[in-house]
Amino acid sequence: MKQSNLFTKTLKEAPKGEASVNAKLLIRAGFIHKEMAGVYAFLPLGLRVMEKIKQIITEEMDALGGEQVSLTALQNPEVWKKSGRWDDKVVDNWFKTKFVNGADAGIANTHEEPLTNLMKEYVNSWRDLPRYVYQFQTKFRNELRVKSGLIRVREFLMKDLYSFSRTEEEFKDFYEKCAASYLKIFSRIGLKDYVFRTFASGGSFCKFSDEFQAVSEAGEDIIYIDQKKKIAINKEVYQDEVLAELGLKKADLEEKKAIEIGNIFPLGTKYSSALGLTFKDKNGKDKPVIMGCYGIGLGRLMGTIAEIFHDERGIIWPKTVAPFQVHLLSLGQNKKSEKLYQDLQKKGIEVLYDDRKDKSAGEKFAEADLIGIPYRIVVSEKTLGKNSVEIKERDKKELKIVKLENLLKIRNW
Amino acid sequence: MKQSNLFTKTLKEAPKGEASVNAKLLIRAGFIHKEMAGVYAFLPLGLRVMEKIKQIITEEMDALGGEQVSLTALQNPEVWKKSGRWDDKVVDNWFKTKFVNGADAGIANTHEEPLTNLMKEYVNSWRDLPRYVYQFQTKFRNELRVKSGLIRVREFLMKDLYSFSRTEEEFKDFYEKCAASYLKIFSRIGLKDYVFRTFASGGSFCKFSDEFQAVSEAGEDIIYIDQKKKIAINKEVYQDEVLAELGLKKADLEEKKAIEIGNIFPLGTKYSSALGLTFKDKNGKDKPVIMGCYGIGLGRLMGTIAEIFHDERGIIWPKTVAPFQVHLLSLGQNKKSEKLYQDLQKKGIEVLYDDRKDKSAGEKFAEADLIGIPYRIVVSEKTLGKNSVEIKERDKKELKIVKLENLLKIRNW
Repeated sequence: MKQSNLFTKTLKEAPKGEASVNAKLLIRAGFIHKEMAGVYAFLPLGLRVMEKIKQIITEEMDALGGEQVSLTALQNPEVWKKSGRWDDKVVDNWFKTKFVNGADAGIANTHEEPLTNLMKEYVNSWRDLPRYVYQFQTKFRNELRVKSGLIRVREFLMKDLYSFSRTEEEFKDFYEKCAASYLKIFSRIGLKDYVFRTFASGGSFCKFSDEFQAVSEAGEDIIYIDQKKKIAINKEVYQDEVLAELGLKKADLEEKKAIEIGNIFPLGTKYSSALGLTFKDKNGKDKPVIMGCYGIGLGRLMGTIAEIFHDERGIIWPKTVAPFQVHLLSLGQNKKSEKLYQDLQKKGIEVLYDDRKDKSAGEKFAEADLIGIPYRIVVSEKTLGKNSVEIKERDKKELKIVKLENLLKIRNW
Repeated sequence: MKQSNLFTKTLKEAPKGEASVNAKLLIRAGFIHKEMAGVYAFLPLGLRVMEKIKQIITEEMDALGGEQVSLTALQNPEVWKKSGRWDDKVVDNWFKTKFVNGADAGIANTHEEPLTNLMKEYVNSWRDLPRYVYQFQTKFRNELRVKSGLIRVREFLMKDLYSFSRTEEEFKDFYEKCAASYLKIFSRIGLKDYVFRTFASGGSFCKFSDEFQAVSEAGEDIIYIDQKKKIAINKEVYQDEVLAELGLKKADLEEKKAIEIGNIFPLGTKYSSALGLTFKDKNGKDKPVIMGCYGIGLGRLMGTIAEIFHDERGIIWPKTVAPFQVHLLSLGQNKKSEKLYQDLQKKGIEVLYDDRKDKSAGEKFAEADLIGIPYRIVVSEKTLGKNSVEIKERDKKELKIVKLENLLKIRNW
């Protein structure tokens, strides 16, 4: 994409009231726009990052046997009354609205109830199970306070998968597969060294659930990490008897702030019993389906990446989720640069081409650092004198001079 | 995909209260699920069709120079008060809600106001224009009555593009390009012979706008078609003076029912003036930006396809938007079929493979017709006896027997 065609511009200042690093950088670089507190629109660069994240998650969910659907935002109160969660005293962050005829409707904050209800149409026998159904759908949470930019918001895109199993064993088998899949996803996204599977409270459902926590000073959670075992425990269950049960020792644990970027949760038969989702087992006996839910907030993940990977000049995107692989800067050499732009794209490389004539070299460098694309290629009179371009990786200091004829032979951008 | 892994099943009966052909067929075939009146979830087969439609529209919008964003559902009343459209007397189909602190919020029914407001951040000079910004985003419309399945609903995915131009001429040039792009989109989707660019009322904005109407008995609109000129006029402006102005003659016009599957609309400076979106022209003078909007409802398009392309046995998907190209039916021959399933997929062909062992041939044939995938391939003892499979196109009666060795050589599925 030519930067002269990009409608967004980098901004010198972040809007007032944005305290978090991720929101400041993402707004200044033109990835997101603040509509209201906790409500952000995604601009072309930001949407590209979201699509990259979405694609990685889709591949891994499909590999688990997931089937993708898209449920609705508008919610039928009758379905939620069956589980007791329509009540504002039970769920305190509903957005509710009314149909023009006066009837109540909810705006979805999660989707256990509608999906459980939907599955009743298709699950009758043990032959219809197990099933793994997921979606990318907006969640609305009427939070009293929001902060931390994309980390805690009122409207966000979530990948939520729900498992429907026949036995506790079948459920646990999938639960562990999904946990492994989550670590793979976060690893592919560039967060391998930062993410820990973390024991947390299971709330009213069960003893424990599992969170995936990314170590960051911007985190709202406190976790205790066992670096050798590559696991952690959330402060909320950091008690002697729990540590003993999990085989963790205080001496091995390190306290860190962290951002919860995913969670997986045994639901047992809470929703299947409440909504009547049963199956006939091999003996013809009706049994409630055993469920689990598995969530990743995509915007929060993007915000976490910006929190973890940045320096004083801007964002440093991991290659797998960067909006483009290459940022091509023309310093008054648009003819040669245009040719290179076309050639790189023909090789399947995603290029943001800074073809703007009214920007100085200094402005272009500063904007490239702020936007944070992994490779910066500079085409200038000086480099062309040596029939070369200058390449710099965003996270390295080293400048390389590469002959034009060798540039297109580079394999791993 | 293996049909044994598909959680949906075809249903013998449509739910009570669904009168429309599109909803009956799409629900029975497992493409959509009715959550409430006018609120439908998309199931795996339906989501695949939506993604195909989305991809075609994306390609054409990008070809027009469109830049993709994703705005929010939650809306700030202050932005809408500036245009006067927060008022329920002006816009009568808002869904509104409240933040936990008691402040009002809207649930987006369209996005002119927030996008105009957003563009103020990035448009200052004539050098920043023209811009074409689009998204795929859910719209919420609090309709008093819904009917016709996916044709008129309360929550739906829309592609909406907004143009920002400096002069009337620049605006009109894009408007015509977008009109041509819309005809191309509908043609690619398989509706070429059914869609007419249709003169319609411009409402409070302008004299005329343009609708894209698909001829169908399920339509709510009446249009008058000039088949030779390949254009039409909506009944709402079917008056002698308008016909004269457009150079149309009553004698050449044919009355038809039609479904509005797209519209393009000059907005003039209504929103830019109200919200203060101006640019400095070459003489340094502030001028309001000239806008247009361009919408396509994706679910409505899917419903329209089902209305137009079906027979008494089920849906007949056009190849470009079908959930799969090939429906492979194994009649007790899963070993040979599995091999063929793998081979076809290796060639990049999307295959739904009916590997189910508990279904009769008759049940499989009936389900295949209901689901409506373009090519049905049957593998049976009989066909394998001739080292062949049987191929039938969904919209033809003819059965072809094709040698296994020739099957993979077929180029155009």
